Amino acid sequence: MTILIREDQGAVARLTMNRPEALNALSDAMLAALHEELERISEDRNIRAVVIGGAGKAFCAGHDLKEMTQGRQAEDGGKAYFADLFNRCANVMRSIRDLPQPVIAQPHGIATAAGCQLVAACDLAIAAEGTRFGVNGVNIGLFCSTPMVALSRNIPRKQAFEMLTTGQFINTERATAMGLINKAVPEQDLNAATQELAETIAAKLGSAVKIGKEAFYRQLEMGLDDAYDYTRDVMVENMLWRDTEEGIAAFIEKRPPEWTQ
Amino acid sequence: MTILIREDQGAVARLTMNRPEALNALSDAMLAALHEELERISEDRNIRAVVIGGAGKAFCAGHDLKEMTQGRQAEDGGKAYFADLFNRCANVMRSIRDLPQPVIAQPHGIATAAGCQLVAACDLAIAAEGTRFGVNGVNIGLFCSTPMVALSRNIPRKQAFEMLTTGQFINTERATAMGLINKAVPEQDLNAATQELAETIAAKLGSAVKIGKEAFYRQLEMGLDDAYDYTRDVMVENMLWRDTEEGIAAFIEKRPPEWTQ
Amino acid sequence: MTILIREDQGAVARLTMNRPEALNALSDAMLAALHEELERISEDRNIRAVVIGGAGKAFCAGHDLKEMTQGRQAEDGGKAYFADLFNRCANVMRSIRDLPQPVIAQPHGIATAAGCQLVAACDLAIAAEGTRFGVNGVNIGLFCSTPMVALSRNIPRKQAFEMLTTGQFINTERATAMGLINKAVPEQDLNAATQELAETIAAKLGSAVKIGKEAFYRQLEMGLDDAYDYTRDVMVENMLWRDTEEGIAAFIEKRPPEWTQ
Repeated sequence: MTILIREDQGAVARLTMNRPEALNALSDAMLAALHEELERISEDRNIRAVVIGGAGKAFCAGHDLKEMTQGRQAEDGGKAYFADLFNRCANVMRSIRDLPQPVIAQPHGIATAAGCQLVAACDLAIAAEGTRFGVNGVNIGLFCSTPMVALSRNIPRKQAFEMLTTGQFINTERATAMGLINKAVPEQDLNAATQELAETIAAKLGSAVKIGKEAFYRQLEMGLDDAYDYTRDVMVENMLWRDTEEGIAAFIEKRPPEWTQ
Repeated sequence: MTILIREDQGAVARLTMNRPEALNALSDAMLAALHEELERISEDRNIRAVVIGGAGKAFCAGHDLKEMTQGRQAEDGGKAYFADLFNRCANVMRSIRDLPQPVIAQPHGIATAAGCQLVAACDLAIAAEGTRFGVNGVNIGLFCSTPMVALSRNIPRKQAFEMLTTGQFINTERATAMGLINKAVPEQDLNAATQELAETIAAKLGSAVKIGKEAFYRQLEMGLDDAYDYTRDVMVENMLWRDTEEGIAAFIEKRPPEWTQ
Repeated sequence: MTILIREDQGAVARLTMNRPEALNALSDAMLAALHEELERISEDRNIRAVVIGGAGKAFCAGHDLKEMTQGRQAEDGGKAYFADLFNRCANVMRSIRDLPQPVIAQPHGIATAAGCQLVAACDLAIAAEGTRFGVNGVNIGLFCSTPMVALSRNIPRKQAFEMLTTGQFINTERATAMGLINKAVPEQDLNAATQELAETIAAKLGSAVKIGKEAFYRQLEMGLDDAYDYTRDVMVENMLWRDTEEGIAAFIEKRPPEWTQ
């Protein structure tokens, strides 16, 4: 059985975490599979958007606690293994940000701890109604410190603090209002909804989406003045592309653009 | 015909972008007019608040694509012109932040691309119900990289990313919930609503509003400790003004303050 | 009469500002009492969560304007006193962030100026329905520059700017939607609601909550990459604790954990 299924639908790569008996826990193997597949997609010019979902009754329940417990057998009590594990996990989250193509999380059932982090780390998210989100490591004595990096960059801080310290779930209504997800749809419509969003984005000029996504995250970490100086240069580069010239000409002439990519 | 109409109502300068046949596009002339008028207002001690609206059926549809296309005629394909254009546009946005007086955007109809940026760049915004907001440059191959600087500092990041990559419009309900605008009112009440908000602010001590507005944006870019150190000094300066002493005395004595400005 | 009442209920320290005739103004004495009690709590291993409320009809109306006015009698017009006052006030706010235990604000009636800042500076907040929040110093010529540091880190910037420059109140519905408070409950349920939230947190592993709270605020001020590197180390430290090992083992074995603290 493949731990991560990739099915391409047109220009959309649909990834399905496929270890349902472990609620798609982010084990060493799952992290490696996600990392490799995202690497592959980053080089794949045919793919213009990515959807990440999970098989079975849950999207993702976070780290694999049994595997982590086995890691304690090492001489250092697991210290080196844990450092490496959290690095690899953060690298997967960062590779989503660094991917040229937008990535849509498709949570259903539950998305907890690093599974909630995965939702927060994606560029976009559409959830099945009824999905419950939590960063509930605190319930077992392990504060969700790495998940909160992504979470606290999605939602207001008091709400993030509440989730992190109470370990309680929030529903899709609250997740939408806070900004953790873009919207929720009935579970039977979930695949269609993420596919539609992905195809909407896939229909844009890919190079524009790519340069824009990169600039989005970079400028967020700058002061306003630096952000304007930086994005000015991005805009100039974008303007000088032949495809953008065609896109603007087509708009003025009220006809569809003929893009080379 | 004046490209930018200024009408003062009491201490409120009402600016109306007046090129309705081009949906008040931010052409070279419009940017220059906005820049000059804001410069003038910054020196005008009689003006305590500013409202920016648009004539015709839309607030502002962003850059002037025909003018930009003409810019491609230059030997460098427009590179220098575009860099200068985006600089001038960013300078208008920054001059709103740097203006001593608060600036209220008054969008109606549509506010797209740099027109949506203008809404985001203002300190406050009241929209007509039915206004549609979009950063839809991506639809023509030109990612709204400079507009996103202002947009992503107003609303949560997943929602910003969605608007930027789908190019789809949002309505006033969603714009209010996200934080892009302060509220929406029926279109026939729009002028009255922005005027009321402007007059509410204009009735405050102008020097306090000025020092507070400057501090607002500066402290947002600091860490918490630096922000407290900086605003402490602002508060001390504010406390030592004669008008503030009078304001506090009047409050304690339950009478209206008699301010010198 | 004690200016600050402390009543411990189990592992929860409940602090009540008790100067109702002055709407619990943050006078020199009140700030000193808060600072001392928070210092004491920071060393108290029996306390795992803190609630701050106010006696009488209001939570807190901000600084003590009469006391501040008396400060003007000094030779420097109060300059040194004001600088010291705003430092002491900011230090109370910072000590809430720096406290190992989470702090829940429990506003009712009104929370204005530095009183609204106190709500914003707490980690969590549950308000009585009907509470009105304002940063209305601008009404008396004193812009709420230090309160805005906390406020603008809780809610979107246009909404913060509106509150700061209009001096108008917002209600609990809007405060909840914006992120200033976690929720509102009927006033007769307020004590029970904050106690329940505090006890929920108090039931967690205290050392995990402590390390997580510290990391929460530190990582918020970092770029994403630094934040992941930093929280990775926090997670590794957390994983190596004996109590966390027990918490994870208990979870895997589907039994309650037996923690040493």
